[in-house]
Amino acid sequence: MEVNDTMISSTTNIQVKEILKLQKSARERKKKQIFVAEGEKLAAEAAFYGRLEKIYLSVGLYGKKSRHIEELLHKHDFEVVEDSVFRSLSETVTPQGILGLVRMPSYELEEILADDRKAFLVLDDIRDPGNLGTILRTAEGAGMAGVILSRESVDLFNPKVVRSTMGSIFRIPFFYADDLTMVIETLRANCIPVYGTMMQGSQVYDRVDYRNGAAIVIGNEANGISQRVAEHLTGTVRIPMAGSLESLNAAVSAAILVYEIARQRRM
Amino acid sequence: MEVNDTMISSTTNIQVKEILKLQKSARERKKKQIFVAEGEKLAAEAAFYGRLEKIYLSVGLYGKKSRHIEELLHKHDFEVVEDSVFRSLSETVTPQGILGLVRMPSYELEEILADDRKAFLVLDDIRDPGNLGTILRTAEGAGMAGVILSRESVDLFNPKVVRSTMGSIFRIPFFYADDLTMVIETLRANCIPVYGTMMQGSQVYDRVDYRNGAAIVIGNEANGISQRVAEHLTGTVRIPMAGSLESLNAAVSAAILVYEIARQRRM
Repeated sequence: MEVNDTMISSTTNIQVKEILKLQKSARERKKKQIFVAEGEKLAAEAAFYGRLEKIYLSVGLYGKKSRHIEELLHKHDFEVVEDSVFRSLSETVTPQGILGLVRMPSYELEEILADDRKAFLVLDDIRDPGNLGTILRTAEGAGMAGVILSRESVDLFNPKVVRSTMGSIFRIPFFYADDLTMVIETLRANCIPVYGTMMQGSQVYDRVDYRNGAAIVIGNEANGISQRVAEHLTGTVRIPMAGSLESLNAAVSAAILVYEIARQRRM
Repeated sequence: MEVNDTMISSTTNIQVKEILKLQKSARERKKKQIFVAEGEKLAAEAAFYGRLEKIYLSVGLYGKKSRHIEELLHKHDFEVVEDSVFRSLSETVTPQGILGLVRMPSYELEEILADDRKAFLVLDDIRDPGNLGTILRTAEGAGMAGVILSRESVDLFNPKVVRSTMGSIFRIPFFYADDLTMVIETLRANCIPVYGTMMQGSQVYDRVDYRNGAAIVIGNEANGISQRVAEHLTGTVRIPMAGSLESLNAAVSAAILVYEIARQRRM
């Protein structure tokens, strides 16, 4: 390839504009069913799962590309972009010089519920991208069958969420529910008890037996679980707190609960 | 107070310059033994613990200050700052209009080790401010006696760490060790076993009995526990991971371990 002939050198380029829209707009991502995965590792994961549509790389990186990147380019459509243009595309402070356009995975609620691990995380309005990414990563580690999110939760394909999942976004099934209470009722109809984690929860979280199936609800960072959702729960649990703390971080609460489920199941 | 007469209206003001230095420089904070706590909640916590030296607030907030802020101003030295100057002082995207200069707490290693809870967290080169803040918050919640950090770890009084501790910075004892291996040997000499959390840890983390005392080492986000530190450990533990995950977030790993200690102690 003669890079200089075809390199994208302007931020007014139509592809550049489209990538910027995908970086900024959840609506655009949803409409196109495409998201942006930045960095070599995430692009390689997208390729591994057969979801990588196209690669964009800075001319700087193109000039000193690794064997691994060369292989990615060999198998995928790609464009080389002037370094300054690449920086404008990147959502990171120190861009690696490579990003991929990736086809979104999607799942049906029925297939998630059919998973015989019968352990689910339900997120009622999680707003912080870093928290959501960390929660997905931890849910995969603890062996959850899937994550169910309220429609108001932050978009899973937000660039910061994608980065902080460390690849879990390609592996853990998820479902955005228009109405979380209906999903909770469906879980309960399938004999999955649904426990809300809250400061005033009635049982200490490790006193509940999760071995025959469980769904854990984690609430919004500032306001906790919404009243509407709370009314549909099987029960509530609390994480004991020493000191003068008002609450734990949402991703930390989720981690403690999902790893308690995993611990009980190893016993 | 006649605000207009005495309001700080320029970023060249000597106090403004000093606050900016304190926001940016760990060295300056250490030299002065002062850090910046942004927001009403943190300033109020600093006041509660008798550590609030001085308050700076934007003229916008001064004009519509709450009863609570009025009380803070009544009891503390304060300055009113032009809104644009306040924004330049702030490390947050949407400044609340109030920050405090706060005297650092400090602790001796001996007093931390003398705590009869005998549960410690040891951080070997944690670099992400959000992780460190979340770890402190979680350590307080789980009832740890204190947190011991390697000298290379991110500064606890970094503005982002301070914010993400949610006030734990005033309550949980901490100690920066020049040489972590010496602290580990001191712990062991005090009959506190020291376990390193690592992917290849020899025991699953919940199979160890932590009830008679334990210290948990969490390693650097990218590289884990350093070889030097690893050589001084009593043993190593691992958090089982399902899926294709390479690792968990450092704050998540810390949370799972400290809450396992707390769980065993409630039994």
